[in-house]
Amino acid sequence: MIRIGIFGYGNLAKGVELAVNAAKDMELVAVFTRRDPSSVKINSVGVPVVSADDAAAWADKIDVMVICGGSATDLPKQTPELAKYFNVVDSFDNHANIPVHFKNVNESALKSGKVAVISVGWDPGMFSVSRMYASAILPDGKDYTFWGKGVSQGHSDAIRRIEGVLDAKQYTIPVEEALEAVRSGKEPELTVRQKHTRECFVVAKEGADKAKIENEIVTMPNYFADYDTTVHFISAEEMKANHSRIPHGGFVIRSGRTGVNAENQHIIEYRLKLDSNPEFTASVLAAYARAAWKLSQKGESGCMTAFDIAPKYLSEKSFDELISTML
Amino acid sequence: MIRIGIFGYGNLAKGVELAVNAAKDMELVAVFTRRDPSSVKINSVGVPVVSADDAAAWADKIDVMVICGGSATDLPKQTPELAKYFNVVDSFDNHANIPVHFKNVNESALKSGKVAVISVGWDPGMFSVSRMYASAILPDGKDYTFWGKGVSQGHSDAIRRIEGVLDAKQYTIPVEEALEAVRSGKEPELTVRQKHTRECFVVAKEGADKAKIENEIVTMPNYFADYDTTVHFISAEEMKANHSRIPHGGFVIRSGRTGVNAENQHIIEYRLKLDSNPEFTASVLAAYARAAWKLSQKGESGCMTAFDIAPKYLSEKSFDELISTML
Repeated sequence: MIRIGIFGYGNLAKGVELAVNAAKDMELVAVFTRRDPSSVKINSVGVPVVSADDAAAWADKIDVMVICGGSATDLPKQTPELAKYFNVVDSFDNHANIPVHFKNVNESALKSGKVAVISVGWDPGMFSVSRMYASAILPDGKDYTFWGKGVSQGHSDAIRRIEGVLDAKQYTIPVEEALEAVRSGKEPELTVRQKHTRECFVVAKEGADKAKIENEIVTMPNYFADYDTTVHFISAEEMKANHSRIPHGGFVIRSGRTGVNAENQHIIEYRLKLDSNPEFTASVLAAYARAAWKLSQKGESGCMTAFDIAPKYLSEKSFDELISTML
Repeated sequence: MIRIGIFGYGNLAKGVELAVNAAKDMELVAVFTRRDPSSVKINSVGVPVVSADDAAAWADKIDVMVICGGSATDLPKQTPELAKYFNVVDSFDNHANIPVHFKNVNESALKSGKVAVISVGWDPGMFSVSRMYASAILPDGKDYTFWGKGVSQGHSDAIRRIEGVLDAKQYTIPVEEALEAVRSGKEPELTVRQKHTRECFVVAKEGADKAKIENEIVTMPNYFADYDTTVHFISAEEMKANHSRIPHGGFVIRSGRTGVNAENQHIIEYRLKLDSNPEFTASVLAAYARAAWKLSQKGESGCMTAFDIAPKYLSEKSFDELISTML
């Protein structure tokens, strides 16, 4: 049994807890929190909740620590720090800062001799792997990534900060015509506006100026101004009834050519349709926690991404079973 | 530059030749044939065609040999034999016999200290990798593989053996309703007949009994009897004009669940739509030839499949470029 620790206890961590408890080869050993441990009730029976400050004392009792902090401020500190004591996995998703994060984590993990897997989830993660395989196979081609239909937490938060807004949920939606143009092999050049639309559901305070709220949303720089955005005002009850899930997903498509005169067109498409963004991301983290442990057992150390890890390490199945049933 | 040899010179080999010539980090060194070398004209200028019997003499001049024989009788002999002298890659696609092929190739490659990558292409190959990632991430779920729309060479050949048939092409077509049922997350149990239909285009000899040919096709055991099959009789001109390409493709879909009560459904779909089955397979072989060379340079040896090889080894891009542009 691979002994797993979970660092943090938000939505993502609760998904990791589910995935670890469902796996036949993993057991949850402890959950670490920066809050008062006595105030945190977890779903697993008999598993201790421990103060984050005491994590280092668990170095011998945990094989892999799955770090469930946020990418903005938590993970840049937590992952290098925890890699001093544990094999670790994180879902760092600030694409532009991955090279710096990689470097910091790598230094720490090489020093401690631990394996640190960063930036796994679905984007970065499974989408990255799909982009990489597809571009290696079809070097003469073009990549497209579409997100949605799904909830963008950042955009929902941006709306909630507008005066007069009680609650908001924003869906990112890929434009069907753009998807079809890409799938046709035409390799279109697509603007931001042509790829995605944004649909917002807003609960306004009683008496709030809805026209003003709508205008503030659709003209908001970076978040909405470059998109075709629709705004629906709904009741708090409707929000709860119809918009309480956190679905997401998207498409990675590569369109490429082969042939003496590049006459043959090939389309590689990878699609995710997820009812729960955090639970799916958590399931990827759990699979890479298994990989981190196996690679550590092989004597490997340092920082790794999904690009560095052979697929077989993610599975709980034996290699014989994999080649006889899945190859 | 990675020095590549190609063993055999059929459709697949011609695709490998194109992929190697298009790659910035590979050069084609020689093509090996069992025919009289002087009778084989290849597309690459200045590259020698050599007798297959003389291959061993090229051991020091070739970094990776891409073996383009057939799975029925060629590869079971060729791959273990050539792995004595070269890092090798093959597209062995007889799924049931992969464990035996793996064992034979592994023994040979371990003895010689070479890397041998077997069974790469799209199925086995990219479809296998997709099945493996998806099942590791969503262990509570169900896998579906659909093939097509595409030409099945085996089924086309079977029709051509019928008396009165001059030429034939058979398309395997996934049933749209079955695909939609799988994508909906219902995890249906599907019979062979419910998953695929077969469409046949046949050029009959003048005066042949078309009703008899059609009946022989649709009732043919293993090949057609278990499917809904349609037969179209066409002219030789129409065959040439409309059915001379070798398209293929298909879908790997995993439908899985997470959640305290398995209440969240997730769909992972990997789709290929290929104008040329052999050229795409060849492009996968070329990428794994690169991987074989890199792994050999790292001191690895023995037989490997797509499950054993980290994605990064397939790319001609540097690791820094990969993490800054694709992760």
